[in-house]
Amino acid sequence: MTDTQRSVVLKRRPTGEPAPEHFEIIENAVPKPGAGQVLTRTIWLSIDPYMRGRLKDVQSYSPPVQIGEVMTGETIGEVIASADPGFVAGDIVRGSRGWQSHSISPAANLMKLDRHAAPLSAHLGVLGMPGTTAYSGMKDIGQPKAGETVVISAASGAVGSVAGQIAKRAGARVVGVAGGPDKCLWVQESLGFDACIDHRVGNLDAALRDECPNGIDVYFENVGGALQHAVFAQLNPFARVVMCGMVAQYNETDMPPGPNLGFVVGKRVRIEGLIVSDKPERFAEWRALASPWVKEGSLHYRETVLPGLENAPEALAGLLRGDNFGKMLVKVGADPA
Amino acid sequence: MTDTQRSVVLKRRPTGEPAPEHFEIIENAVPKPGAGQVLTRTIWLSIDPYMRGRLKDVQSYSPPVQIGEVMTGETIGEVIASADPGFVAGDIVRGSRGWQSHSISPAANLMKLDRHAAPLSAHLGVLGMPGTTAYSGMKDIGQPKAGETVVISAASGAVGSVAGQIAKRAGARVVGVAGGPDKCLWVQESLGFDACIDHRVGNLDAALRDECPNGIDVYFENVGGALQHAVFAQLNPFARVVMCGMVAQYNETDMPPGPNLGFVVGKRVRIEGLIVSDKPERFAEWRALASPWVKEGSLHYRETVLPGLENAPEALAGLLRGDNFGKMLVKVGADPA
Repeated sequence: MTDTQRSVVLKRRPTGEPAPEHFEIIENAVPKPGAGQVLTRTIWLSIDPYMRGRLKDVQSYSPPVQIGEVMTGETIGEVIASADPGFVAGDIVRGSRGWQSHSISPAANLMKLDRHAAPLSAHLGVLGMPGTTAYSGMKDIGQPKAGETVVISAASGAVGSVAGQIAKRAGARVVGVAGGPDKCLWVQESLGFDACIDHRVGNLDAALRDECPNGIDVYFENVGGALQHAVFAQLNPFARVVMCGMVAQYNETDMPPGPNLGFVVGKRVRIEGLIVSDKPERFAEWRALASPWVKEGSLHYRETVLPGLENAPEALAGLLRGDNFGKMLVKVGADPA
Repeated sequence: MTDTQRSVVLKRRPTGEPAPEHFEIIENAVPKPGAGQVLTRTIWLSIDPYMRGRLKDVQSYSPPVQIGEVMTGETIGEVIASADPGFVAGDIVRGSRGWQSHSISPAANLMKLDRHAAPLSAHLGVLGMPGTTAYSGMKDIGQPKAGETVVISAASGAVGSVAGQIAKRAGARVVGVAGGPDKCLWVQESLGFDACIDHRVGNLDAALRDECPNGIDVYFENVGGALQHAVFAQLNPFARVVMCGMVAQYNETDMPPGPNLGFVVGKRVRIEGLIVSDKPERFAEWRALASPWVKEGSLHYRETVLPGLENAPEALAGLLRGDNFGKMLVKVGADPA
């Protein structure tokens, strides 16, 4: 155990792609927990698309990270000292402890994990925020039915991969869209989607028509851009669009125009935004539902891991470029003994 | 009673603004009703924005009118001969009997009206399809709450005028948008909206900011175009957009781009299309609710009437240009004795 707390703080705001130069690593003595607080060391740091929004100086659904502040992020950590009766050294916890090697948290902000229930990192991906986002998106907005056609963008990503598997379990025809043949192969072969379109190859409109001969009933939107235009043009009456993200434009400064919305009237389409924290009960629901599937190996996921806290900025930049294959993670500290 | 049935049929499809040359009046002997049928003469013909869609050779939620077919439309008529036990000569009925002076209908397609409950034309406007559209849009999608801010486009129109009055009754701040000072004055003074913005004057963004200092919670969309962009930029978290129509582009052949939809995610906005016939129970609900308000004079409406069936094409063209002030109607035949 080191005596130094390393933290990645925001140095200046990126205008386009975020890069290491926009961040700074600062070092402090590891702090001691006060009453009701817990000191943890970080094992896993989750890297997620929403983080790009926190780098902008605009209030969205959460306030932006300020210059000089530790960058926010969900983590898995191990308790090394506790001044709260609910935790003891050695406990494994999930929390929003940011991009740092050690952190002090109020006990109420930590959730104890069963370290044998699933690989620890799964609590940041398939069983964590991204998995719950997919679950809430499908349960609260998408509501796929047997025989319907569901299109999933960023289909190999942490959210898309789960969203599509949920739709398959509901009996829908599921068509993924991903970047490159390796991802598409995995989406079809391992996740069991009915088809996966490589958006880097050929004509999107034609590929969607081929793979969705009965039109599109549910679209799980993670990407935006040209794909959004193409999918919207093939939506069926009463289609639902889960607006989860538009990562294709997160680095843009000038927003491109969107699709003309005239079709929404005649087709009675529902387009709805989703922020997973609005329905906090979905986290426990999903964990209870999906943990057995992860254990038995019927719910599939993949991870891209960068080693070392100092690589967190590059991990975020890579995620926004689509370099990741599955959930993007930074391995900050050693596994627990 | 004349012996000639005059019918307006579609002659050729307009590409831009519809005009009399796209239609043709044909004359036939007045037909006789067969068993279970009713012959009516038309008193009032309703002219509505959706009719522009029926002139296009594309299947929307209803099939298009074919060349040589009688143009569709809702009417109020008087029964002049009946071969159905449910109707007798002199009954006043509402139905979708099209642009014609006389028509034969299956009895099941007609609804008998109490001629003393409200002015007959009100059954095509405030108490009919447009009023029910406003009601369903607010009940099923908009759901305005006390203290929220509601923006209504085409605020002096048949749908907008009712939508705004419903939102006022719910305790919301209601801001209309209309074209020209006369309409705006009426919307504020007679309908009781809190404000009305003349979209022909000044800067829409600034006017909306001035009149909606707490942002916009519900947008009732009848128009599209620049107003849609301006309103979308000022929507609040959890805003609802009732997509009822986009009349500004109904005569367009190339659809303009829409607003970038990135905001939908972070603000959890719900954008949903509305076709009133999807929930047929809303018609009777609204009639029961609103008839007393019309009778007591607390629900306000206005009409623009063009005389003569031959003016129906010009009435539709004028409606699409916004020439109407309130519900657009054609007076086809004399009032009942």
